[in-house]
Amino acid sequence: MRMLINVPETVVADALRGMAAAHPELSVDVENRVIVRRDAPVAGKVALVSGGGSGHEPLHGGFVGPGMLSAACPGEVFTSPVPDQMARAAAAVDSGEGVLFIVKNYTGDVLNFDMAAELAEDEGVRLAKVLVNDDVAVTDSLYTAGRRGTGATLFVEKIAGAAAEEGAPLERVEAIARQVNQNSRSFGVALSAGTTPAKGSPTFDLPSGELELGVGIHGEPGRERRAMMTSREIADFSVNAVLEDLPPTGPVLVLVNGMGATPLLELYGFNAEVQRVLIERGVAVARTLVGNYVTSLDMAGCSVTLCQVDEELLRLWDAPVQTAALRWGR
Amino acid sequence: MRMLINVPETVVADALRGMAAAHPELSVDVENRVIVRRDAPVAGKVALVSGGGSGHEPLHGGFVGPGMLSAACPGEVFTSPVPDQMARAAAAVDSGEGVLFIVKNYTGDVLNFDMAAELAEDEGVRLAKVLVNDDVAVTDSLYTAGRRGTGATLFVEKIAGAAAEEGAPLERVEAIARQVNQNSRSFGVALSAGTTPAKGSPTFDLPSGELELGVGIHGEPGRERRAMMTSREIADFSVNAVLEDLPPTGPVLVLVNGMGATPLLELYGFNAEVQRVLIERGVAVARTLVGNYVTSLDMAGCSVTLCQVDEELLRLWDAPVQTAALRWGR
Repeated sequence: MRMLINVPETVVADALRGMAAAHPELSVDVENRVIVRRDAPVAGKVALVSGGGSGHEPLHGGFVGPGMLSAACPGEVFTSPVPDQMARAAAAVDSGEGVLFIVKNYTGDVLNFDMAAELAEDEGVRLAKVLVNDDVAVTDSLYTAGRRGTGATLFVEKIAGAAAEEGAPLERVEAIARQVNQNSRSFGVALSAGTTPAKGSPTFDLPSGELELGVGIHGEPGRERRAMMTSREIADFSVNAVLEDLPPTGPVLVLVNGMGATPLLELYGFNAEVQRVLIERGVAVARTLVGNYVTSLDMAGCSVTLCQVDEELLRLWDAPVQTAALRWGR
Repeated sequence: MRMLINVPETVVADALRGMAAAHPELSVDVENRVIVRRDAPVAGKVALVSGGGSGHEPLHGGFVGPGMLSAACPGEVFTSPVPDQMARAAAAVDSGEGVLFIVKNYTGDVLNFDMAAELAEDEGVRLAKVLVNDDVAVTDSLYTAGRRGTGATLFVEKIAGAAAEEGAPLERVEAIARQVNQNSRSFGVALSAGTTPAKGSPTFDLPSGELELGVGIHGEPGRERRAMMTSREIADFSVNAVLEDLPPTGPVLVLVNGMGATPLLELYGFNAEVQRVLIERGVAVARTLVGNYVTSLDMAGCSVTLCQVDEELLRLWDAPVQTAALRWGR
């Protein structure tokens, strides 16, 4: 037990109170667990709402703000938020131009966002949904039918968020979100298991000196377990797994993502190896982002996400964004 | 061993290659280990150079860019950079307006920056130095005579960097840096020890279920070791330790900093407790920053830094900054 908490039951509420204190530009409803950009609803603008289990921070609350999400709904740790949260968020951010739900492909999230969509539509909100399912490691998993949604969520939220900020209509924002997901693939590796507050011990058993290739962001099993590999070998395995599934025909965005406990020093070193593989495979890199963005509590490890972009997607990626975790431009 | 590396010997060089690939806005000299903002030297502008052992990322390389550092010099993990690095950095960024060295108070850094200053002055660079020594936990430590330099480094680099960006002369930038350090105090807590690549095992012995109150960013011993405490208790202890040493008479900047392996979810929850203590103690909070900024590899834990600000320091804190790790404004 090396957790910085009071009791497991209040972890999410405590974090929301702390987030409210640090970010006056956000409106944080601690009781109902909804994080909203303070100027919402923005007249004439399509709204984007996402959410999921807590424990993946800064995803999603750290991505709320101009140029990205309108609102985020955090569930309990590794547990879907409830439909009421998303319906409440949709009502809070809808300007009349409609709301896009961005849903990572986990059974609980899919069901609850579906119910939330019905609730919101009953209230007259025009609703669209996009499913993120970028993880090439496995098909079907502990909490997923089909592929899991992981790092591509960041690309979908950023790029569709930029389109919405520019005033694109709901159908267009939805189409862009879908395109970004279709163009994205991820592969993750665990070097150690994370510890949930409720359990107080590692969520899965990974002996020291072994790694899990293809791990999910809740510690779901991957493709295989092996003796420890070098950064070079992990980059070869991960990038090749992604490229086998989606051989890019144009430039890509690269996300080298930390699972939580891997130092930035190591993530940058890993990025050097990822870039080497991409050069060897003749893949042009448009932009690279390195850091802890889609995490799994204090799991050690990393994931690689590639997103193939055309000029328009790249322009939207470069567009200004002002959130707690991602911020550039004006 | 759960490290994402090739071999310990190349960790720093690998990270610099990865940083170069991710940040085209930086000029990274991998061989000589100097990270420079690409547009340096900036005519008419005082330059700021910092550095220190690696393993504290994003400090310092992640703070290079407009509005903050002109250059950073990473040493080996937990090892001071050599004088040649800082002298080379000073030469690369000096526009003729002079260079401020920002030095965390560790014996090796102090010695090597002193030697670098002599080298740079021999080359005709006008040099000033400021020592950061904000850690109230202990006086004298494993690598320090006096107090250790920790979280305040971020405040010094940001605020003095803003002054330099506005065109303040060297004497003024130095005075501001000194003022920020004098107005800042920190206290850190370890919930687990970090692991250096070279050693491959924890840098100190911290039994599970215990914590180290007042730990240093290299795992140096603190004030005492106790059985695990709650977030609430840790906040009380840490903030009170800081306030005992510097009872603020005005508003403060708050840095709730993660040591590396503590999830953002927990850091935000801890921030809620820090803010509670500050309210109870009647301290006004001007701004709050929560995240992993001055880390200790994969150590679990956190630190609190308070910096008392007047209107001018707050204005400089809010001024635009564009670095890999800290970025706001235009």
